[in-house]
Amino acid sequence: MKLLLASTSSIHGHSYLSYFKDAWTSHFKDIHGPVVFIPYARPGGLSLKKYTQIAAAAFNSQGIELRGIQTFDNPQQAVENAGGFFCGGGNTFVLLKTLLENKTYEHIDRSVREGKPYMGSSAGSNIAGKTIGTTNDMPIVYPPKFDSFNWVPFNINPHYIDGKANTTHKGETRQTRIQEFHEFNETPVLGLREGSWIESDGIKHVLKGELSARIFQPNNDPIEIPNGILRL
Amino acid sequence: MKLLLASTSSIHGHSYLSYFKDAWTSHFKDIHGPVVFIPYARPGGLSLKKYTQIAAAAFNSQGIELRGIQTFDNPQQAVENAGGFFCGGGNTFVLLKTLLENKTYEHIDRSVREGKPYMGSSAGSNIAGKTIGTTNDMPIVYPPKFDSFNWVPFNINPHYIDGKANTTHKGETRQTRIQEFHEFNETPVLGLREGSWIESDGIKHVLKGELSARIFQPNNDPIEIPNGILRL
Repeated sequence: MKLLLASTSSIHGHSYLSYFKDAWTSHFKDIHGPVVFIPYARPGGLSLKKYTQIAAAAFNSQGIELRGIQTFDNPQQAVENAGGFFCGGGNTFVLLKTLLENKTYEHIDRSVREGKPYMGSSAGSNIAGKTIGTTNDMPIVYPPKFDSFNWVPFNINPHYIDGKANTTHKGETRQTRIQEFHEFNETPVLGLREGSWIESDGIKHVLKGELSARIFQPNNDPIEIPNGILRL
Repeated sequence: MKLLLASTSSIHGHSYLSYFKDAWTSHFKDIHGPVVFIPYARPGGLSLKKYTQIAAAAFNSQGIELRGIQTFDNPQQAVENAGGFFCGGGNTFVLLKTLLENKTYEHIDRSVREGKPYMGSSAGSNIAGKTIGTTNDMPIVYPPKFDSFNWVPFNINPHYIDGKANTTHKGETRQTRIQEFHEFNETPVLGLREGSWIESDGIKHVLKGELSARIFQPNNDPIEIPNGILRL
């Protein structure tokens, strides 16, 4: 497999996808066919068309063709024509439900496992893990299951953010939420900060970007790991 | 029905349940039998027993008997003996899944609809709404459905917090998340700030506490409403 899984599509003060432009232009080098964009997560309720236009503008500026999956006659045709896939962020529940219900899920799964490059950001990275059980999103729709692609043997928590020491708000910190996850699940969780991404072939996982990431395992204290190869 | 639905169990600088003590001691006045505590949401993975001890300490200090639902032989017996119910906060997915799977759900539903007083905080308030689709919690387990008690004809977003103007973090604000909910759902959503609670008979809903709340309706701008009777 050839995976690029980013915590976020943009970081503060930088335009859409620009902060890791070198990584994704290299990721999609020498592909045959357009990058097929999966806009189903619909951030802010954005239409599939408008969301695709935003992604296309970023890819086209680097000389890479991008086409929305909704413009093909069916998922099989989209996958056959795809040089690779980019799945954008938004709501993870909406994304997974849509993929499963319109049967795109199984086609993309097979194609990525056969080697076509896949890039995700935020919700699009979340679904590459074992389940969507560590998404930050609101459960605005009910998907048929929480299990996801399991291309990497851990769960991702995108937009990972450290708890604030001085807050008066009683909502749980991100770390507390992930530790609650481990009361009920064994899967390791990677807290991926904005500005970080993972490159993986499914076996070797490399943390890229300038920041460290935080690994949570059941019955262990979380550990901070620098960028480089992840031991998970 | 006789409902008291709080955004949170405690506010900054105040001990557990103390900030609305007058409200809940009045809510449970003249009941026959103990308040039956539902600890299934298990905040921070706390055991049912330890969580019940915390709730019992607060209730006993006001001369009210409280007993964990897990100490009864079965849900039917618990509900028959209950003078009322208090469902504590924690993880809403864990709470709803447990209630549905051990069949406590239908017994409590009937008993509350027949008039026994119910108090919820956070997750315990969330499940009083139409669905759990506006919880802030992480989906750490997969419940059989997201539909909940529907005792009030709207959804609650507890721990409601306003977006921060100066943040550099790219995660969605609470308002954006609720507006995404309305791309897929018609149910009104009440953003209930910490320190606020609702008292309701199922028809008339009164916002209590010193803060305003925020009402979200599909296709409308959100509105701030002062405490008092809610028009929903």
